[in-house]
Amino acid sequence: MRFWFESEFSEVFGLTEQPSARNADVLYDQLSATLASPGFRPRALFDRFRIAVLATTDDPADDLEAHARLAADPTFTGRVVPTFRADRYMHPDEPGWAQRLDRLAARADVDTSSYRGLLDALRVRRAAFAAAGGTATDTGVIDTGSEPLAEAEASRIHRAALDGSLTAAEAVAYRRNLLYRLAELAADDGLVMQLHPGVHRNHHRPTFDAYGPDTGHDLPAVGSFTEPLTPILRDFGTNPVFRLVLFTVDETTFSREIAPLAGFYPSVYAGAPWWFLDTPAAILRYRRAITDSAGFTKTSGFIDDTRAFCSIPARHDMSRRVDASFLASLVVTHQLAEEDAFTLARRLVDDIPRATFRLG
Amino acid sequence: MRFWFESEFSEVFGLTEQPSARNADVLYDQLSATLASPGFRPRALFDRFRIAVLATTDDPADDLEAHARLAADPTFTGRVVPTFRADRYMHPDEPGWAQRLDRLAARADVDTSSYRGLLDALRVRRAAFAAAGGTATDTGVIDTGSEPLAEAEASRIHRAALDGSLTAAEAVAYRRNLLYRLAELAADDGLVMQLHPGVHRNHHRPTFDAYGPDTGHDLPAVGSFTEPLTPILRDFGTNPVFRLVLFTVDETTFSREIAPLAGFYPSVYAGAPWWFLDTPAAILRYRRAITDSAGFTKTSGFIDDTRAFCSIPARHDMSRRVDASFLASLVVTHQLAEEDAFTLARRLVDDIPRATFRLG
Amino acid sequence: MRFWFESEFSEVFGLTEQPSARNADVLYDQLSATLASPGFRPRALFDRFRIAVLATTDDPADDLEAHARLAADPTFTGRVVPTFRADRYMHPDEPGWAQRLDRLAARADVDTSSYRGLLDALRVRRAAFAAAGGTATDTGVIDTGSEPLAEAEASRIHRAALDGSLTAAEAVAYRRNLLYRLAELAADDGLVMQLHPGVHRNHHRPTFDAYGPDTGHDLPAVGSFTEPLTPILRDFGTNPVFRLVLFTVDETTFSREIAPLAGFYPSVYAGAPWWFLDTPAAILRYRRAITDSAGFTKTSGFIDDTRAFCSIPARHDMSRRVDASFLASLVVTHQLAEEDAFTLARRLVDDIPRATFRLG
Repeated sequence: MRFWFESEFSEVFGLTEQPSARNADVLYDQLSATLASPGFRPRALFDRFRIAVLATTDDPADDLEAHARLAADPTFTGRVVPTFRADRYMHPDEPGWAQRLDRLAARADVDTSSYRGLLDALRVRRAAFAAAGGTATDTGVIDTGSEPLAEAEASRIHRAALDGSLTAAEAVAYRRNLLYRLAELAADDGLVMQLHPGVHRNHHRPTFDAYGPDTGHDLPAVGSFTEPLTPILRDFGTNPVFRLVLFTVDETTFSREIAPLAGFYPSVYAGAPWWFLDTPAAILRYRRAITDSAGFTKTSGFIDDTRAFCSIPARHDMSRRVDASFLASLVVTHQLAEEDAFTLARRLVDDIPRATFRLG
Repeated sequence: MRFWFESEFSEVFGLTEQPSARNADVLYDQLSATLASPGFRPRALFDRFRIAVLATTDDPADDLEAHARLAADPTFTGRVVPTFRADRYMHPDEPGWAQRLDRLAARADVDTSSYRGLLDALRVRRAAFAAAGGTATDTGVIDTGSEPLAEAEASRIHRAALDGSLTAAEAVAYRRNLLYRLAELAADDGLVMQLHPGVHRNHHRPTFDAYGPDTGHDLPAVGSFTEPLTPILRDFGTNPVFRLVLFTVDETTFSREIAPLAGFYPSVYAGAPWWFLDTPAAILRYRRAITDSAGFTKTSGFIDDTRAFCSIPARHDMSRRVDASFLASLVVTHQLAEEDAFTLARRLVDDIPRATFRLG
Repeated sequence: MRFWFESEFSEVFGLTEQPSARNADVLYDQLSATLASPGFRPRALFDRFRIAVLATTDDPADDLEAHARLAADPTFTGRVVPTFRADRYMHPDEPGWAQRLDRLAARADVDTSSYRGLLDALRVRRAAFAAAGGTATDTGVIDTGSEPLAEAEASRIHRAALDGSLTAAEAVAYRRNLLYRLAELAADDGLVMQLHPGVHRNHHRPTFDAYGPDTGHDLPAVGSFTEPLTPILRDFGTNPVFRLVLFTVDETTFSREIAPLAGFYPSVYAGAPWWFLDTPAAILRYRRAITDSAGFTKTSGFIDDTRAFCSIPARHDMSRRVDASFLASLVVTHQLAEEDAFTLARRLVDDIPRATFRLG
């Protein structure tokens, strides 16, 4: 769809012509010159886009040194915070897991050769992320299974992974237990837990071999939350410290799982439409499917999830237009007072995401 | 959504102000006084709401004495009928099953210590419900599996349940066989079989422990009908005595399962949007997903499923508005003649539910 | 819905009255007379409907003699081509499989008593279909599993099927391997591979016993593409000779599977809404769910799939109206320029299906 690409071209880059084969060379040169200009340095765009908060995603072993330098720099006053993402410690069957444990041990100054040590190191690093301004974590897993293991069993699997005798079933059990433990840690330190599950990573092996991960061939899997999240929600679902924001690439979960869960559990929030679903038509379906059970304040409000810095204004613009259109549809059918719609339109992009992510 | 709550407040309770923190105490007092007034006695509301039929849900062991008293009361002329709900006899693994069998035996005057006896007792009680004006049954099961068992096998499991040697797999097989037997009974006595499957009951264990069942933490499961109902539909699907009304909390089944089943099988009807799905947006999605394959006369028409007596007018009002809106969309796109739309709008709330539930 | 039936009655048959009980006999006589008139001979309708291409579906063992006669007939200049459909060779557990192999062997002049021979015979017949003007194949399977087998294992199962020792698991493995081999052949000869999966055939056994297959009781199953098609897409997904058009009766796969697959894989196209989903409301949902990820040129454009010859104009008319309505909705929300909408409206019914099916 041309919507946000065009909006990005015209609003951010100032193009006045629609791109076509005829003017491609001219526009390319114009875009190159624009990108090289001082107004397109990252900090200049950060100011121009009026970004309130920008959150990076970082490995627990990251030293957060870039964040420290930015915070110490008197010439930059923007809010840029780290987000704790421990995915790479959750898959003991993946190559390099033991090496990553070693790096994490060095960073946290905690021996990670035991399962207990890994949990301690993660706790130490979560505190460091919070100290650096972080308010949230993120986790991407193929499914949301969260059955906890007894400590002895988790410790046994941890050792099996290190000595090379891990089975496939043990790797799954270990990963699901760690998802539970991340929730347990979140119920203690109050970092908001974001869950982005259900993606077939690297669906096309030849593309992966040639270009590596994150090259466009990750694809949605069937989504599921209600049954697999039972252990986490049983133990932390009504805990006021715990907060869980659910994202999905399977829109069938909007009305069947995410909205009812957000409607009952105080801790659960419906994350903004994500990835294949952050488009005009899908955002509208999201609001229609979510709102009757979960309302507005149990959604995250729009947050984008882009790697393309210059797309940020266009994505927010699009999302706001679609949300405004949805609110208007409630007003004209007498389901919402017009003045409430105006209030909500603003809260959806300001108060609600701030509150959801505990941004203070 | 404020739709039906507001409609209930203004139309039923006569509030003229929108509730807010400022007027909460005044409105509370006003509502309390209204509820205590003679016009808000149940029978007065029954008349005022112009309820044509009200169906309760009752255990087969219920003596239906309240129904008998109401029928014998010359001062009440409304139609209040029982609905046969045998769920609690379908789960031999649940605590109290044997005791419930005993109570049923006493009520039906049939020995239920054998499987054959249980079926006989259920048949006897179905007849009593029909004699008390009942025209339908209801069943809530986690899945719609309906594989019948040979009588010897069902009898063996029945005995195993009573002597405490039941396995989990046997409990499931027993429950699925009983669903088939309920259909078999319905194909004999003509009571309309309603199916409300696919709900995770008591998802939050601590809430269950503190407050018990039906306290807001039942959640939708993934729905399925076409494959698991094969045995019932193979044997009774074209039987003119048998009628099966399918409800769901998983809207993906609307176009994939329920509408095609209702389109082919004379016995199958698409139940009204239920629970999380009886909202303005979801009812519209239901009509859009169901109508092309199943039309209007193979839907149940709107019936509400509320425990909140005062919400009845508002729920019917909302449903009628949404159905009218859907019919209007067909008229303006030339898919339906305007006069047919007027006829259908009326039939959807009168003739169609009466015919579906054999209300005479 | 009355839409296309009425359109067929009025536009094709020239009825001017709405059918009703009152005029049924008169209209029946009028329709009978119309059908018997010279203007309703198949070739006359073919010309009148301005059909660009009509594709039949044929068994690989078919001699295509009717196609040869039509091609050789100077009095008929329409384009009628065969489509290769090898379903009946993919199920070695079905009665008659060995006999069908024999007929295929005779037609292809290739010994099919071995697995290798079957593949050779299929290759020979695909070439014959292409020579007769065919540009596509079609396959209907219950699931899209496509795991290839080593040749020795496939050969062993082939022999087991012929000597009667086949297991159910082997039959499934054999079928999934053949789906992979059909893709392999398509990546070689360039016939466009159509996949119509996920249908419970003959759901109602008594209807099947009385009336046979294809009598209205086939029903949708849950759809799945992304995971089960991994082997085919890994090996042929970016092969420029290979082309795969995915159809579904489970609309949940539109945004979750088909659109993302068509968005990434150059070989994958989103087939037109099929069967229960080729209705006004469902076609609109298809465009809304598909377009943001896959655009328009990675859809097949509308092709009907009817056995009712006289319904062709009405079905295309309906589809074009719905697509035009969808395009208009993009124009009024400034997501598409009006002139681009006009161009696309035409391309969707002409250039796009021609290109998708390599119709030259």
